[in-house]
Amino acid sequence: MSNISQHISKKFDVALDDIHNKVLGMGGLVEEQLKKALLSFINSEQKTAEIVIENESQVNTAEVAIDQLYINILVRQQPAAGDLRMLSAISKTITDLERVGDEAEKIAKMAIELLDKKDPKFAYTSINSLGKFVSQMLHDALDAFAKLDSKLALEVALREPESDKYYASIMRELITHMMENTKNISGSLDAIWATRSLERIGDHSKNICENVIYLVEGMDVRHISIEKMQEMIKSDR
Amino acid sequence: MSNISQHISKKFDVALDDIHNKVLGMGGLVEEQLKKALLSFINSEQKTAEIVIENESQVNTAEVAIDQLYINILVRQQPAAGDLRMLSAISKTITDLERVGDEAEKIAKMAIELLDKKDPKFAYTSINSLGKFVSQMLHDALDAFAKLDSKLALEVALREPESDKYYASIMRELITHMMENTKNISGSLDAIWATRSLERIGDHSKNICENVIYLVEGMDVRHISIEKMQEMIKSDR
Repeated sequence: MSNISQHISKKFDVALDDIHNKVLGMGGLVEEQLKKALLSFINSEQKTAEIVIENESQVNTAEVAIDQLYINILVRQQPAAGDLRMLSAISKTITDLERVGDEAEKIAKMAIELLDKKDPKFAYTSINSLGKFVSQMLHDALDAFAKLDSKLALEVALREPESDKYYASIMRELITHMMENTKNISGSLDAIWATRSLERIGDHSKNICENVIYLVEGMDVRHISIEKMQEMIKSDR
Repeated sequence: MSNISQHISKKFDVALDDIHNKVLGMGGLVEEQLKKALLSFINSEQKTAEIVIENESQVNTAEVAIDQLYINILVRQQPAAGDLRMLSAISKTITDLERVGDEAEKIAKMAIELLDKKDPKFAYTSINSLGKFVSQMLHDALDAFAKLDSKLALEVALREPESDKYYASIMRELITHMMENTKNISGSLDAIWATRSLERIGDHSKNICENVIYLVEGMDVRHISIEKMQEMIKSDR
């Protein structure tokens, strides 16, 4: 390798490291938003909910900045196949992170909606459990992204059906509660929206994991079945 | 320009045209899915709903194929800045189209859910209006993408608040209906999910428009306000 191409390659590695770190920074911000949103919902903390809503624009700004950086790298340097996979995975991951930010904001808004309704907190224990579950999924998905660990990514992606089970169970609880008395409908619907947002955060975390697998293994796993994914783990270990 | 670079450039144009056409093909498929899903919901047509669910995998296959093509172009040819914007817009657009496909499938599933419930069809006229409205948004967004028409894209993006108004009005209708009798809850919730899916299709159509604007104008309009967008139209015309 000539000195020049080494130089170019090093410069490129620095740029790639930089954008990778910025995605992790955005991930940290989004995790913090989710943590606060869940807290505001479960403990009826108006101020915390307002902070989440206020900080939502920071998530959007981070997305736009990273996207610009991504295009700049594509234009100025001419990345090789492996690096392009990294850039493509980054581009998709920040879209998912931005949407997790949106869902966190929605949860905070529902927390505020519910303040006025003075409904007894129904199904909150279950909603909190789902919240903790998907927060961990997001955290581990970002960890897999940080370490470029496709096995961890696969393991996290496989947790998604469990978050669906939580979701279905909470929905049953809330619908039953609505059926008992029409007065429960309005508050239960707000809780349903928050639950739906949490379930979507599980989906986005799974998407991030699929991006990591694609990045590391060069394998598109977006539309394959759980059985197939499990086979992949088995054959790999 | 040397003969070789002309040759490369022409080859590249062909590749870009090809991927652009494939996205439009995927768009046509998704439009068809939405049309059938809405029909199945409004007219309680079980068979039509089943066709939508069956064809959903075609949408996924199209997304994966185009994504692969996109990476291949990035790796084999070294596109210039303008072409990269096109490729980036394509990558984001197929993600939105895939999600419209997902929402169409959800609407078809709700149509099937509602078959057994034998509820009187409540708020269906309004839901049909919202369905027609977002179908037109999707159609025009794809038209703007086909013609690379940023003005049309901006005009369609600005329709999104109107779809939100439809959505809010249907939600009020359905919640009132639930309040009247707890027997209405289960069917109304299914209708709420379908309405929510339609509203999201409006969002995705808006995203596609923003991709077109970015592609043509090189301007990121994702997180700017409606007022700002309207200013942009005025200053441009």
